[in-house]
Amino acid sequence: MMYKARVEVGLRSGHSDPEGETTARSLIELGYCVKSVAVSKIYLIILEADSEEEAKTNLEDMCRRLLANPTKDHYTFQVETAK
Amino acid sequence: MMYKARVEVGLRSGHSDPEGETTARSLIELGYCVKSVAVSKIYLIILEADSEEEAKTNLEDMCRRLLANPTKDHYTFQVETAK
Repeated sequence: MMYKARVEVGLRSGHSDPEGETTARSLIELGYCVKSVAVSKIYLIILEADSEEEAKTNLEDMCRRLLANPTKDHYTFQVETAK
Repeated sequence: MMYKARVEVGLRSGHSDPEGETTARSLIELGYCVKSVAVSKIYLIILEADSEEEAKTNLEDMCRRLLANPTKDHYTFQVETAK
């Protein structure tokens, strides 16, 4: 079965987010009333697995091994059957 | 009023996504049955505006001017009142 996953990886609070800070500064310079910007990443993954359970186990594993840095990132994901 | 916006910026289909391709390759090398990976970015923005309407107008503007590249990116956003 093919599954479609949406994995969101962002910084845990307290970790500095230079990209977000630079974006906020640029938006303020452009004249917008911006208080803060935080940047996260979305991975849209098409994967094959025997069951949704297996897809979730593999995704959890991918997050821990490659997609997220366990020291500074948090992650969440949703899985659905791919059409 | 303070508003909290979630802006998602991704590549239009047909544009090459080297980061997604590299991620897919790495996941395959790690042994996962991955067919494709596409990467998007989320900007969580706290901004001030007189109304939700004004917040949306400003966000549309921010996307066109800074956050997205109109030639190759598509973007969507949701706005809610910040607590």
